[in-house]
Amino acid sequence: MKAAIVGGGVIGGGWAARFLLNGRDVAVFDPDPQAERKLAEVLANARAALPSLSDVPMPQEGRLTFAGSLQEAVEGADYIQESVSERLDLKHRVFAQIQQSAPDVPIGSSTSGFRPSQLQQGALNPETILVAHPFNPVYLLPLVEVVPSPATAPEVVERVKEMLRGLGMFPLHVRKEIDAHIADRFLEAVWREALWLVKDGIATTGEIDEAIRMGFGLRWGQMGLFETYRIAGGEAGMKHFLEQFGPCLTWPWTKLMDVPEYNDELVELIAGQSDAQSGAHSIRELERIRDSNLVGFLRALKDRDWGAGRVLREHDDRRRAAFGVTPEGAPLVLAHMQVLPSWLDYNGHMTESRYLFAASETSDALLRLIGADIDYVKSGFSYYTAETHIMHLGEAKAGDRLTGSAQVLGVDGKRLHIFIRIERGGVVLATLEQVLLHVDMAAGRACTAPGTILSRLRPIADAHAALPRPKAAGRHVGQRRR
Amino acid sequence: MKAAIVGGGVIGGGWAARFLLNGRDVAVFDPDPQAERKLAEVLANARAALPSLSDVPMPQEGRLTFAGSLQEAVEGADYIQESVSERLDLKHRVFAQIQQSAPDVPIGSSTSGFRPSQLQQGALNPETILVAHPFNPVYLLPLVEVVPSPATAPEVVERVKEMLRGLGMFPLHVRKEIDAHIADRFLEAVWREALWLVKDGIATTGEIDEAIRMGFGLRWGQMGLFETYRIAGGEAGMKHFLEQFGPCLTWPWTKLMDVPEYNDELVELIAGQSDAQSGAHSIRELERIRDSNLVGFLRALKDRDWGAGRVLREHDDRRRAAFGVTPEGAPLVLAHMQVLPSWLDYNGHMTESRYLFAASETSDALLRLIGADIDYVKSGFSYYTAETHIMHLGEAKAGDRLTGSAQVLGVDGKRLHIFIRIERGGVVLATLEQVLLHVDMAAGRACTAPGTILSRLRPIADAHAALPRPKAAGRHVGQRRR
Repeated sequence: MKAAIVGGGVIGGGWAARFLLNGRDVAVFDPDPQAERKLAEVLANARAALPSLSDVPMPQEGRLTFAGSLQEAVEGADYIQESVSERLDLKHRVFAQIQQSAPDVPIGSSTSGFRPSQLQQGALNPETILVAHPFNPVYLLPLVEVVPSPATAPEVVERVKEMLRGLGMFPLHVRKEIDAHIADRFLEAVWREALWLVKDGIATTGEIDEAIRMGFGLRWGQMGLFETYRIAGGEAGMKHFLEQFGPCLTWPWTKLMDVPEYNDELVELIAGQSDAQSGAHSIRELERIRDSNLVGFLRALKDRDWGAGRVLREHDDRRRAAFGVTPEGAPLVLAHMQVLPSWLDYNGHMTESRYLFAASETSDALLRLIGADIDYVKSGFSYYTAETHIMHLGEAKAGDRLTGSAQVLGVDGKRLHIFIRIERGGVVLATLEQVLLHVDMAAGRACTAPGTILSRLRPIADAHAALPRPKAAGRHVGQRRR
Repeated sequence: MKAAIVGGGVIGGGWAARFLLNGRDVAVFDPDPQAERKLAEVLANARAALPSLSDVPMPQEGRLTFAGSLQEAVEGADYIQESVSERLDLKHRVFAQIQQSAPDVPIGSSTSGFRPSQLQQGALNPETILVAHPFNPVYLLPLVEVVPSPATAPEVVERVKEMLRGLGMFPLHVRKEIDAHIADRFLEAVWREALWLVKDGIATTGEIDEAIRMGFGLRWGQMGLFETYRIAGGEAGMKHFLEQFGPCLTWPWTKLMDVPEYNDELVELIAGQSDAQSGAHSIRELERIRDSNLVGFLRALKDRDWGAGRVLREHDDRRRAAFGVTPEGAPLVLAHMQVLPSWLDYNGHMTESRYLFAASETSDALLRLIGADIDYVKSGFSYYTAETHIMHLGEAKAGDRLTGSAQVLGVDGKRLHIFIRIERGGVVLATLEQVLLHVDMAAGRACTAPGTILSRLRPIADAHAALPRPKAAGRHVGQRRR
């Protein structure tokens, strides 16, 4: 698949990064002579952050080209994303030029304000034009508001939504077009109120930001306005909440008058306060801090399979098929991992407990393979690790792709003796020898595994009996290396 | 310290939980016959969530009592938090009753709308009255808007702010009182806009919530409105952003007209959509999901020492002094940990890699003790773990308090041989035998440690030489247990 990116600023660059890192080819057109440098910076940020969200190895990056013309960029493209300045006349000219050579290719516009029917005015083929409004940083935040007009072809809408899901995004289908779609109406309401608070000297930009990020901002990353208030209503739910707070609606809490006057004085006031608040960090530093924080939030939600984290998990599930376990071949290669930034220690290497984590990923996959999976655990039985010996032979760093393989050294009714290698590109970084015991969890003691498990385990053990015994097996700590 | 909690609903109960879990005694007054049951539910939620934020063992919980009268509740209290219904006449009556018996004790009001000067009307002692407006769930979110009026004594304001910091909260001093303080003005602006979108059929409550939590909600948990937009301005910063988006202020994006009419039709529409969106979960389930998500966000920020996470880290630092390392006594007890919910595996026990994590916490503390700390690593040298042997002897579960102790088995210029025990209340759950090598990080090979390190290490090794050698030392995996 090839995507054409028209306009390569912060938003267009973010789109390009998301397509490229998901393995799609990208052609960018932007007449700005600085476009290549700017896009390279966005791409560097994305490479540092987006792979941290994945528990499946990333695909080979797509090919990035810079086109000398709009025509060249859209040639052969399956999808076109427009992210030029928010001027309707400019967008109309761009669409006209695109549709001269690619009238049938879907065009998504990054506009935060215009309605799709405005964008379609005078277009050669309005059917392929819709709004696909993303949120900065585009390579991390899943939301895309997909807004068709009645003139947009329904099959184009569905095709674009499916394509966006393939990038790990969350297309929110906005059913009725309005100015500023949905999310930016809230941003605008808050922005206007914030400007009043600053102008009236109630609070500084820094104080306003603390009022957001220390409180309701945290809530809104995982549940929106209504679900949060539903909880606040207690057992009686939403109706109770509305009964309690509905009447407050008529209180004069917010500025209902028009917007504050936009003048130099207001600009100086805000820019000065913003410098005092955030000036200790460069914009690049703030971007990296923001991205690292967002990765942390998204990982937390992914661990809990909730909200934006569920989008990530589903994206992994779709891609995992490409990296299936291959049970033939010995030792069994069972786990594929990528070293995430949060796995590093203060030396900048993968922290030692993550080697045991990588081994657990491997042994869990082996247990699933022999039928000792999560349903088996629910039935009251499991394999517990009794003992482990680890040899550290090399160092993994951020972004390294690791595989975990298991060699079965011995099996009896209660015991499973395995040898795990954690490798990077054929180089063994650590070995882990383990004895696992089959346990009756309620009784809290080892017991013989059932025939269903042992009948799957023994053929693997028999196949592995032919393999050379690893030198590190049977070592004790501090033993001289052979 | 004793806090009196007047009004024990969701907000009052959240306050009570925060005080209790931080080791303060609490007396609650609430005439609702269901008050004890309701507070027990909030407290159960808080116990499941708040300790997960701490990397320092929690103090002994404070003592909770339910008072038969307001007078009894405030007797001997150092601080009083009022969280009764949002009716000014009721709050005036409560303050009058409180000040009859406790005129000098600071009273913080949880009001989200009233100004402190309104609360002080007719009070016996206005000097001790201020707004201390928290955010639900009070036991997790750090924000408290502290709003004095000109009649509030400045020393009371400072004392209350310091007390709130002692609970791990972030007091935001609102310098000028206005209706609804700061944060709720934004919530109100968004709420009004959201009601219009639902009423006009643009979006459902579920769609609105996705528009928030898949996009800008995630941003706002870590940076507020202004810092986010500063980044969006690129290298040119805030002024550039304002120049680009300032003119949009005059666009008719948001509903500038008055609020939508509050009537049964609107209530039914919203309650019905909310049921369709969230009805699959009970309110209790939603609370637990929310809390787990918030814990995840807050932990992510704490790992990065940013925003609300910095508040948590500072709270730990203040409390850590109480749990200092005691370098005398052998083996050395070096680390105190509590098993966090995120440390559990699908068996419901502490996952095996966390035992190695616990050992790393212990060995890191030992390395700091001998001078091989983070500054030493920056100088280009470090101790790397070469080999580890783990014996799993017991199981830890969520909330367990663990200690990590180290016994030095041997030292030479390059090697450090240690034996770590992870214990819960004197019961050893795991032992970890390790050899660490002193390395020249640039050269990538072992080298002799300097005298400064060895001179601190050898006296510990000499003291430990007298200890019995652990039976598990020198074991290899699968060896028959002695």
